[in-house]
Amino acid sequence: MANYVRFRDAAGGEHYGQLDGATVSALSAAPWLGGVATGFTAALDAVTLLAPAEPRTIVCVGLNYASHLQGRPVPDPPTLFFKPLASIANPGEGIVLPPDAGRVDPEGEIVVVIGKRLSRASREEALAGIFGYTAGNDVSARAWQRADGQWWRAKGSDTFGLFGPTVVTGLAYDQIELTTRVNGVQAQHAKSDELIRDIPEIVRYISQTITLVPGDIIYTGTPGEPQALNPGDIVEVEITGAGILSNPVVAG
Amino acid sequence: MANYVRFRDAAGGEHYGQLDGATVSALSAAPWLGGVATGFTAALDAVTLLAPAEPRTIVCVGLNYASHLQGRPVPDPPTLFFKPLASIANPGEGIVLPPDAGRVDPEGEIVVVIGKRLSRASREEALAGIFGYTAGNDVSARAWQRADGQWWRAKGSDTFGLFGPTVVTGLAYDQIELTTRVNGVQAQHAKSDELIRDIPEIVRYISQTITLVPGDIIYTGTPGEPQALNPGDIVEVEITGAGILSNPVVAG
Repeated sequence: MANYVRFRDAAGGEHYGQLDGATVSALSAAPWLGGVATGFTAALDAVTLLAPAEPRTIVCVGLNYASHLQGRPVPDPPTLFFKPLASIANPGEGIVLPPDAGRVDPEGEIVVVIGKRLSRASREEALAGIFGYTAGNDVSARAWQRADGQWWRAKGSDTFGLFGPTVVTGLAYDQIELTTRVNGVQAQHAKSDELIRDIPEIVRYISQTITLVPGDIIYTGTPGEPQALNPGDIVEVEITGAGILSNPVVAG
Repeated sequence: MANYVRFRDAAGGEHYGQLDGATVSALSAAPWLGGVATGFTAALDAVTLLAPAEPRTIVCVGLNYASHLQGRPVPDPPTLFFKPLASIANPGEGIVLPPDAGRVDPEGEIVVVIGKRLSRASREEALAGIFGYTAGNDVSARAWQRADGQWWRAKGSDTFGLFGPTVVTGLAYDQIELTTRVNGVQAQHAKSDELIRDIPEIVRYISQTITLVPGDIIYTGTPGEPQALNPGDIVEVEITGAGILSNPVVAG
């Protein structure tokens, strides 16, 4: 089990790194691209954590927990969608509520980080192609989700693509716990064995049509019924061993 | 009026470049990032043309010509969606028909290339933020488009995101002609003054929720009723002054 981050040092340099206790050790490249220790280390509280991967593609699964479906049928084929890279914000940065969006919800999710190039993978290849996991918040504007048909701004607005703070390795894909808290109060909770389509199946299925490359990320779906956010709220999403992804909510 | 490309030289090096007749002159960076001539030139037929931009975000407009709506109402709010960067293929590369997709259509489109960072832009700022235009083919798998709800694989499969071969500057946004040909026979034709939502409005609208950066591209919609593709077909999309985007169709 190891924890990987991306960070900006005090001089403004950006690095991938390994987190060990309160120390980050810079890597020469992303760990999934074979990065090795450069010898540069810093105290965690002296650096700024960045979103811990630089994906080419962000794919998300919708409607993948019975607790979120609330009696609706399981979609077949599955409901997947993209977030644009433009939506990425860093751990700790504000979730900006667009002025005219109406209700905006957090969606805590288990996020897969891809470690190998995968095209038309088998289930076994898909599982072997996973580098690790991180926590994700698939921020969602509900009125736009209904009105637009395609969920481009409902799911893709600036700051709606949150993940981090670390990528953790060595987890069993079906034993990952997910908790979302708003202002310290638990809002969502699930374990990855509750996913309707499990993690290797999701990765396998996506790879049938879209080539995944190291660093790509996949949001696996949200459980339960998240609640609306308001300016001033603090949203925390936590998964087993990856730390707490915390973002404040701000008016746009 | 100038034409910009991206190309791979005989030694494998990749460059942005300016095209002048049959000669490409390498630039130090993308022209929208201030690239200047490096002094390296090559014959056009000695290099491989690449997709002429490296966008962070690819946004597409659906249902934006009356000739494509075929009597359906104009969507309000407009129907937009993303293509993933994974879908990009180069000019001349094969359009791969996924084995189980059923009908796949070409969609010839006018594509906007963004030249300035745009966030919550006015119409005037949006227009001033356009660097140029290129031809695009928004390849679309019709059965998946109906079955999936979200158009992730219908529009986002590998090789479904085509644009090029050059980015042309100096065009009036409402005077751009678009023609699609399949095996030399005209399949689509329109002018940009037929767009329901015109080009500055599209860019302005997207920038209200998504920050656009230089090199981002926007597909503005397809006219008419495209026809199904078959292996062996050659699809050409041409817009005013940008050359012909030509791709063969291959079985997946």
